[in-house]
Amino acid sequence: MSGCPYFEKKHLLYKNKPPKTEEDEDDSQAGVNKASRGGIIYGDYLQLDKILTAQVLQSELKANKIHDEHLFIVTHQAYELWFKQILFELDSVRDIFISGHVRDERNMLKVNTRIHRVVMIFRLLVDQFAVLETMTALDFFDFREYLSPASGFQSLQFRLLENKIGVPDNLRVPYNRRHYRDNFKGHDSELLLSTEQEPTLLKLVEEWLERTPGLEVDGFNFWQRLEINIFDGLNQEKEKIEKMPDSEEKEELMAEMVKQRELFTSLFDEKRHDHLVSKGERRLSYKALQGALMIYFYREEPRFQVPFQLLTSLMDIDTLMTKWRYNHVCMVHRMIGSKAGTGGSSGYQYLRSTVSDRYKVFVDLFNLATFLVPRHWVPKLNPNIHTFLYTAECCDSSYCSSDDSD
Amino acid sequence: MSGCPYFEKKHLLYKNKPPKTEEDEDDSQAGVNKASRGGIIYGDYLQLDKILTAQVLQSELKANKIHDEHLFIVTHQAYELWFKQILFELDSVRDIFISGHVRDERNMLKVNTRIHRVVMIFRLLVDQFAVLETMTALDFFDFREYLSPASGFQSLQFRLLENKIGVPDNLRVPYNRRHYRDNFKGHDSELLLSTEQEPTLLKLVEEWLERTPGLEVDGFNFWQRLEINIFDGLNQEKEKIEKMPDSEEKEELMAEMVKQRELFTSLFDEKRHDHLVSKGERRLSYKALQGALMIYFYREEPRFQVPFQLLTSLMDIDTLMTKWRYNHVCMVHRMIGSKAGTGGSSGYQYLRSTVSDRYKVFVDLFNLATFLVPRHWVPKLNPNIHTFLYTAECCDSSYCSSDDSD
Amino acid sequence: MSGCPYFEKKHLLYKNKPPKTEEDEDDSQAGVNKASRGGIIYGDYLQLDKILTAQVLQSELKANKIHDEHLFIVTHQAYELWFKQILFELDSVRDIFISGHVRDERNMLKVNTRIHRVVMIFRLLVDQFAVLETMTALDFFDFREYLSPASGFQSLQFRLLENKIGVPDNLRVPYNRRHYRDNFKGHDSELLLSTEQEPTLLKLVEEWLERTPGLEVDGFNFWQRLEINIFDGLNQEKEKIEKMPDSEEKEELMAEMVKQRELFTSLFDEKRHDHLVSKGERRLSYKALQGALMIYFYREEPRFQVPFQLLTSLMDIDTLMTKWRYNHVCMVHRMIGSKAGTGGSSGYQYLRSTVSDRYKVFVDLFNLATFLVPRHWVPKLNPNIHTFLYTAECCDSSYCSSDDSD
Amino acid sequence: MSGCPYFEKKHLLYKNKPPKTEEDEDDSQAGVNKASRGGIIYGDYLQLDKILTAQVLQSELKANKIHDEHLFIVTHQAYELWFKQILFELDSVRDIFISGHVRDERNMLKVNTRIHRVVMIFRLLVDQFAVLETMTALDFFDFREYLSPASGFQSLQFRLLENKIGVPDNLRVPYNRRHYRDNFKGHDSELLLSTEQEPTLLKLVEEWLERTPGLEVDGFNFWQRLEINIFDGLNQEKEKIEKMPDSEEKEELMAEMVKQRELFTSLFDEKRHDHLVSKGERRLSYKALQGALMIYFYREEPRFQVPFQLLTSLMDIDTLMTKWRYNHVCMVHRMIGSKAGTGGSSGYQYLRSTVSDRYKVFVDLFNLATFLVPRHWVPKLNPNIHTFLYTAECCDSSYCSSDDSD
Repeated sequence: MSGCPYFEKKHLLYKNKPPKTEEDEDDSQAGVNKASRGGIIYGDYLQLDKILTAQVLQSELKANKIHDEHLFIVTHQAYELWFKQILFELDSVRDIFISGHVRDERNMLKVNTRIHRVVMIFRLLVDQFAVLETMTALDFFDFREYLSPASGFQSLQFRLLENKIGVPDNLRVPYNRRHYRDNFKGHDSELLLSTEQEPTLLKLVEEWLERTPGLEVDGFNFWQRLEINIFDGLNQEKEKIEKMPDSEEKEELMAEMVKQRELFTSLFDEKRHDHLVSKGERRLSYKALQGALMIYFYREEPRFQVPFQLLTSLMDIDTLMTKWRYNHVCMVHRMIGSKAGTGGSSGYQYLRSTVSDRYKVFVDLFNLATFLVPRHWVPKLNPNIHTFLYTAECCDSSYCSSDDSD
Repeated sequence: MSGCPYFEKKHLLYKNKPPKTEEDEDDSQAGVNKASRGGIIYGDYLQLDKILTAQVLQSELKANKIHDEHLFIVTHQAYELWFKQILFELDSVRDIFISGHVRDERNMLKVNTRIHRVVMIFRLLVDQFAVLETMTALDFFDFREYLSPASGFQSLQFRLLENKIGVPDNLRVPYNRRHYRDNFKGHDSELLLSTEQEPTLLKLVEEWLERTPGLEVDGFNFWQRLEINIFDGLNQEKEKIEKMPDSEEKEELMAEMVKQRELFTSLFDEKRHDHLVSKGERRLSYKALQGALMIYFYREEPRFQVPFQLLTSLMDIDTLMTKWRYNHVCMVHRMIGSKAGTGGSSGYQYLRSTVSDRYKVFVDLFNLATFLVPRHWVPKLNPNIHTFLYTAECCDSSYCSSDDSD
Repeated sequence: MSGCPYFEKKHLLYKNKPPKTEEDEDDSQAGVNKASRGGIIYGDYLQLDKILTAQVLQSELKANKIHDEHLFIVTHQAYELWFKQILFELDSVRDIFISGHVRDERNMLKVNTRIHRVVMIFRLLVDQFAVLETMTALDFFDFREYLSPASGFQSLQFRLLENKIGVPDNLRVPYNRRHYRDNFKGHDSELLLSTEQEPTLLKLVEEWLERTPGLEVDGFNFWQRLEINIFDGLNQEKEKIEKMPDSEEKEELMAEMVKQRELFTSLFDEKRHDHLVSKGERRLSYKALQGALMIYFYREEPRFQVPFQLLTSLMDIDTLMTKWRYNHVCMVHRMIGSKAGTGGSSGYQYLRSTVSDRYKVFVDLFNLATFLVPRHWVPKLNPNIHTFLYTAECCDSSYCSSDDSD
Repeated sequence: MSGCPYFEKKHLLYKNKPPKTEEDEDDSQAGVNKASRGGIIYGDYLQLDKILTAQVLQSELKANKIHDEHLFIVTHQAYELWFKQILFELDSVRDIFISGHVRDERNMLKVNTRIHRVVMIFRLLVDQFAVLETMTALDFFDFREYLSPASGFQSLQFRLLENKIGVPDNLRVPYNRRHYRDNFKGHDSELLLSTEQEPTLLKLVEEWLERTPGLEVDGFNFWQRLEINIFDGLNQEKEKIEKMPDSEEKEELMAEMVKQRELFTSLFDEKRHDHLVSKGERRLSYKALQGALMIYFYREEPRFQVPFQLLTSLMDIDTLMTKWRYNHVCMVHRMIGSKAGTGGSSGYQYLRSTVSDRYKVFVDLFNLATFLVPRHWVPKLNPNIHTFLYTAECCDSSYCSSDDSD
């Protein structure tokens, strides 16, 4: 960045690594110093020789240079750069979960910060369409033919990203009756397959939610307490309504009451849950759903404040990915119209169909809003007894302390 | 972009270039077709092998991998990608001016659109800080030492950009008493020198403003008419004030009147203008300033609508570059504090000093706001006589038509 | 705004209105001066006594004050303030069209600037959701019951806005089988009805497009020339393909060719157009569509540069309104889940269905992208003969000059 | 909001308040039901009769209606609406601190969420300038005279906001040699005075930081441990440098070492701190500064994760307020130029001078970046012994539970 003085100071005095033996030290130090003196300069550090020479206009190769193709290339490259960053953050978060480090709650800061960073990047990517939209359909038409058969469907990183978050293969909208992986060959195709098989962020969050303290049947037993409270509450409401004089209003209230009872009955019906999961309408396990609702209701308890933020950020990612898809659709509409040809389903129609709750990985976190209840129905916690919400778990320092680098 | 169907359609039917001779045609066509069949795919088109392999963490090379360095690299690379795009647009606009194509008013759409695109890119770049700000000072500290002596001061593209727009060498704030060009060697240094010598956007816009129709002394003679109207107007005001009974208010009005007269006297004083130019407080020639004010006052006339937009966009660029600088300062403050050491001027202080009107290239366009006058003081145009504001200039088609590609 | 010094200077010297008679003058001037001395102060000017006392929390009235209701109210009020501004701009633009002032091309600056302003406001409104999203579903649940039966469906201004732009009554998605106007009574309902009957922005733009210079059958006759060129072009392509040796590729090209021919045949088929209009798939008249395509193809000609910007801005409005709807849907999903109850169509589902091309008023401007052709197929203009693209129309000054104020 | 279905459902079944006695219940319930049936509608809820009738154009009153004045009014009203919301959030946070509720860490979620909301609002307010910037200097000039002597300096809410956050009276830049409070009279002036005397957010955060666990001299004694570690570390570095063979590099390193030692000596020098505070260069007490640095270094510990976020958000507010000021300056430059008259300091110059670290309330949090040290210099914590970082404080439920409403 221009004039950025961050890294121009010599900081030879500091070394992040604990000192090695005396002898090693002098040598390595001398080496570092020399390297530092010659040092690395900005352009080499950022490998600008690669970054800034990667804009080759197909139209120019075909001897018909079209100005706006440059913007088209740079915009897509910027998208791919940021996709790489998102994948980097996602992988590091997944590693923390997979390795079990998440059990040490000190690592929640990292998880939370990095997921929040992904949110901020997606926010930028949504805004970034405004730049490409300075190109009109007519400008695009001038070089569109030269790009064939390249296609955004071939963006490996975007597919990896979807897979790693947890877009399930069987809920994807097919395009021209082809499986999405058919657009990729060899190593890329294998890479995609392996991300389908690795634990997704959804799966890892699910496992973590299943361990939410307070769910233990022989402990606080949140789920059973909640069920009791809700039906007690509903019964009290019902009695009150029954005491009302007959009226249209009374009837309406009673009808509403019946609906509410059905709604909550469904919440505590594990079979129905499994049925919804099989249809793809729910994604989390029954236990994980309970954990999420527990975190929702007790979000102010010290131990749940950061987990609650995490759940919120996961919804942010879903929302922003879907906004990204929608902004993409809008731009495509402008660039090629709604029909690419006279018949058949168009690219526009395909993209439009992906702006769907089917692609919302954490859809359950949204839909839990249906099951909120008044605060006085939520089972009461006694801080003196239920201390688990005031005491964090952490591993001993020998286990955790070395984990700075990721 | 993911799933972008733009360029997946075969458009072999269309050829942008006029047909060649029959014989050539068949061969080339066949060739194109084959190429197209094999064709180019997304990753190759965008040269992702270069873009996505350019993230090498210095901290990892030093065996102390720090997670956040990846974000630091990607962010700076994204900045450099966009700087390249801005330079591309600037160069194309400068070419239109330099080649004289701007005299054909058909080219104003290109000029205007591309300058507007630069505005939109800068808007994104200002927002982009929000992503890097997800890194805290403490995260940065962990790898800061490894970057020495790389520095944002070494961003060649940013300096080129400043030079091409028209930041003058003599108004730059020196840093540690060094000339900005001393940060660069060999080819880069020569490149910078040559951009100092080439016509800047400021210079080209100046020349274009000097040709503003209506300035001709033997024609509409805007400047003289305006001078007469303004002083007539001021005299009438003065008379009215003189007729008022004595009061504190009358005195105030008279004092204000004296100031106004001085202000406008200064406007029409060419020597004073040249003096301000020599001090760097004004940048445009006296004639160009007149042109700009003419466009301001007659902005609704058909011929000036697009030029008026252009002047507005030029101010947008200035404003956004200065906002970019300011956002940069804010981030540096957060990352390294206001003092890098105990003594000497810090990088923070240096950067802060560049958030200055000295770096506003089109500062005159802002300051003209000081010289606005009531609409009825503006010299009247008669559309029947002064037809120059209703008739665009254009070159004959043989001269202009081939210019589609840039 | 804080510390804003804009309007603190006394500008008694200037009067925007032409001088009246001498006698009037002194009195009125004296009056103005006195008024100005006492003058108006910031809070009174903005009527902050009304604006800042309009936040009454229902939850507080019900003796259960919920903090987040304040944000809910302020956000909606900010939306309504901006809706009022959008309506103000729309009405002024519609007036320019209705009064015929648009024939004086000097007024295109106003039209264009104001439509662009609407674009900028919508951009802000889309971003504004980020603030309301700091409220979680659980915070909302705490006061949601108190709002019944108030509903966003009852926003008069939003419906007016839709009507004035041109969302047609018969394409609206019904909600719970009720007509949208049934949510309003008395004066509001009449107001809505009248906006359905007044000329919409769509209608006014249509009329303006129908007058696009160059469409005259006895003049440049764009439409016929275009038809000829396109089919000539297609025939030449066909001949070339026919000369190719038999191959799978040849077959594909020929099939593609057939599609292209069908596509363009449909473009020049007025009956088919009328059929599409009757189904709501097209909105503009056949003639207006021709005008729009003419502006697209000749957008660089001086006279069409500003009209082309206008068409682009109209698409921006459509796009942003639809993005606003989509962001709204996303927030509602988060706040209440996808199902408000166990049965029936939910508010979420209703809102989702309005994120549809049915609500894109200027959908034709997008879909014209389907009918782009190579530049060398576009009928050539000779600037020496077809001077209409270089000469603006304007009314004589007596007619137009008084129109500064709106 | 248009079509927002949030609040249209009847939720009579739920009552947030714990049940009252049986007899009360029936009556009140009946009452509520009736109210709810008639209920409140959207326009009344938002008091749109006040909000949407508060746009009175001074230019229209003076019989010279200028279109753009409407935008000017609405924009400022939107700013004031959001200022009200910010004040509402600030007051609620200050109340939590003042009442001591912050000692119950359950309330940190509220504090953090509301401060974050202020951040999001400021982000919107910075963006909002883009709308007002669609008005040009020339449009503004047309109605500017009518506004005299109203001025943004008279925005009561903005001054309250500055005071409540903690902009100190003695660091304010005077304007035209007048005290800022002289712009206000009567009740407003008293209100301002009282906010100067009430505890500011800065003061409250300071007190909270002073209580940071780990600072106790008879406990973990962070400050002394840190001092020992730092000087041990510096000594080791010094020894290493001394062993190097003589060279230019060695000298540089030694000089740098001397600077570092001075820097850290200053950190532990309480007298110097007090001196800096007296000059306004530091704002926090010496103890609070220690608390902040402790939170920085141990930010990953469960108990400090949310406090660390809070410190980050406080810097965000400072940064955004200063960006808001800077964007304001940029717009004023465009609207009135840099000189309002020929002499004297202009409004532009005044505003520019407020874009200063003097107005950064939490400047110490930024400048602590100067005092970062390598991770292995930070005093080690043993989770088994120093359990205070794993156990949250909370009050007993009878004390805390009633606090839902704010």
